[in-house]
Amino acid sequence: MTYDSHDPWLLTPGPLTTSLTVKEAMLHDWGSRDVAFIEANRTVRERLLALAGAERDHVCVPLQGSGTFAVEATIGTLIPADGKALILINGAYGKRMAKICDYYRRDYVTLETPEDVPNDVAALERTLADDPDITHVLCVYCETTSGLLNPLQAIAVATERAGRKLIIDAMSAFGALPLEAGETPFSAVVASSNKCLEGVPGLGFTIVRRDDLAACEGNSPSLALDLHAQWKAMEGNGQWRFTPPTHVIFALARAIEEHAAEGGVAGCGARYRRNCEILTTGMREMGFTTLLPDALQAPIIVTFHRPPDPRFDFQDFYDRLNARGFVIYPGKLTVAESFRIGCIGRIGETEMRAALDAVRATIAEMGVTKLAPRAAA
Amino acid sequence: MTYDSHDPWLLTPGPLTTSLTVKEAMLHDWGSRDVAFIEANRTVRERLLALAGAERDHVCVPLQGSGTFAVEATIGTLIPADGKALILINGAYGKRMAKICDYYRRDYVTLETPEDVPNDVAALERTLADDPDITHVLCVYCETTSGLLNPLQAIAVATERAGRKLIIDAMSAFGALPLEAGETPFSAVVASSNKCLEGVPGLGFTIVRRDDLAACEGNSPSLALDLHAQWKAMEGNGQWRFTPPTHVIFALARAIEEHAAEGGVAGCGARYRRNCEILTTGMREMGFTTLLPDALQAPIIVTFHRPPDPRFDFQDFYDRLNARGFVIYPGKLTVAESFRIGCIGRIGETEMRAALDAVRATIAEMGVTKLAPRAAA
Repeated sequence: MTYDSHDPWLLTPGPLTTSLTVKEAMLHDWGSRDVAFIEANRTVRERLLALAGAERDHVCVPLQGSGTFAVEATIGTLIPADGKALILINGAYGKRMAKICDYYRRDYVTLETPEDVPNDVAALERTLADDPDITHVLCVYCETTSGLLNPLQAIAVATERAGRKLIIDAMSAFGALPLEAGETPFSAVVASSNKCLEGVPGLGFTIVRRDDLAACEGNSPSLALDLHAQWKAMEGNGQWRFTPPTHVIFALARAIEEHAAEGGVAGCGARYRRNCEILTTGMREMGFTTLLPDALQAPIIVTFHRPPDPRFDFQDFYDRLNARGFVIYPGKLTVAESFRIGCIGRIGETEMRAALDAVRATIAEMGVTKLAPRAAA
Repeated sequence: MTYDSHDPWLLTPGPLTTSLTVKEAMLHDWGSRDVAFIEANRTVRERLLALAGAERDHVCVPLQGSGTFAVEATIGTLIPADGKALILINGAYGKRMAKICDYYRRDYVTLETPEDVPNDVAALERTLADDPDITHVLCVYCETTSGLLNPLQAIAVATERAGRKLIIDAMSAFGALPLEAGETPFSAVVASSNKCLEGVPGLGFTIVRRDDLAACEGNSPSLALDLHAQWKAMEGNGQWRFTPPTHVIFALARAIEEHAAEGGVAGCGARYRRNCEILTTGMREMGFTTLLPDALQAPIIVTFHRPPDPRFDFQDFYDRLNARGFVIYPGKLTVAESFRIGCIGRIGETEMRAALDAVRATIAEMGVTKLAPRAAA
């Protein structure tokens, strides 16, 4: 019995294509206070910590909801009312952290670069030196808006040297790109169940320094998103404060096993790099152009310029690819017309090559010939 | 292939036993911006509205997370900073709403009755008459702490007569107990995917008067839990602001179909009432006593006094029932030692009778004979 043989492949930033065995892990019901669930929850938390090499000084606190819920919980719990954030922005997810600080009335400054330019580490160093009020630096590892890889290692070192705390939104990178607490000092890393770990959506988590979190009782302006209270309750009896998404957690437990069987972060990352290489090479051969040079491209999602050909209509392109079994993603850039194709999820070389075939057939069918914005130049 | 033949029956307040077909609805992956998902989401929202007879004046806003997330979002969005809540409390869920108001620094007063006493409608009327600052009344339809049914209809009428707005936590009642907007005036009703609708956990929703919600822009102190922003975004393009729990939503869509096939609220409620009657009759025949008289008992979950017999150890009782395939629930009363057995989820007469057999065998095995607290009196 194959349940998902007709599901389209999701070449998006998530929700993604997951394995059938991950989905089959949800074919049960569990009591949220029962031993089997408590044990699965404990295992998931431990293995997530291990994936970041963070077993010694950090704890893992899962939270119901999407990744943004966990980002908000982390900001609201870790940054006290008299704290001040410096937010590194080059896309929608950096801006979203600023918006959370607006809602929470947390003081902050931003360092913004264009969507195709990495965070500016020299400017970060200067700003931290000039403004002693800044307590936390907030950054996005892979900015899904463009697919850009930010210079996390340099940001972490600069933040630590300046004696400030780093909060990393690693949503679309965790599990595929290197992130080791021993090498990349951080106060907190936030990610979710349904990106590179290839679970289903419904759960975020924060890996946070125990000392930092322990000092945050009473900070959170929200009960549901109080990461300190969530942690204390879970440490107490292994249970969640409020009904946990049990099926999502068992799917994640299975996904983490499959991730380990593939060789963990190295194995998953290698597959995604290969997917990304096949995708960008094949699309460029057709004449499409990428927003980013390869050196700035994370192997997560690739932004392509919208072809200037008047016969190219994005919705039509999207619908035709969908009919061929591939779901792509609209662009999110503010500076240029674009679309995105993801490299992550339970997909490999076969699916990426099939996706290229589908794109090739689709543009031929649409009569689109002028693909590169500057092809005429 | 039967996947869940060995899963224990969950006689708890949730997560609950769901049908295999509801779980099988999760054996696919969907893009969150794709037509199939947007259509499923629209259908779920419409059908939830219809279940409350609220199509005319209300809208349905789903939210990622547990039911408490939706309760917090509703309070934070609907009650403005200069509003004042009157909270009717007779258990943990009423207290939780007060705790949310504490976090959000919303002004409130409480009217508290003991855990086995319904909300006091006469006191509500007096308090509303005496305190013109009160803008909202908050109540819990079925207080899961005890299993008690609060006098919702009288509360709704009193609140409307006094010109105030009513927010109902109907978490464990929605879908099984009567609630019609035309008969029971309310500003907002909050519930979740995994109680009487028999979906899986991971989603809450609020059915809220369109006029009331439209006036609430900028109220919410939280981005993730901003019900107004969630609504406006979803009305705009049918999509969620942040990654939706796609699998949970498709499971809920299937669960709502099965709920309708059973005869909707009337059919589901009738099965639960029968479950409750079988349970309480059978347990009383053995000598157990219930916290509540039948007139106050909602057919959702039943609280039993802990037997005074020294051979009765709750954990031992729980483990032995679990080994026999039934998961029950600890008590949550502050006033008396107790335990709880639920009547909801995909269970019927056969499972309730089997549960009674398991309890009978278990107490015999444990050598427990003195079951009623006042048996000697």
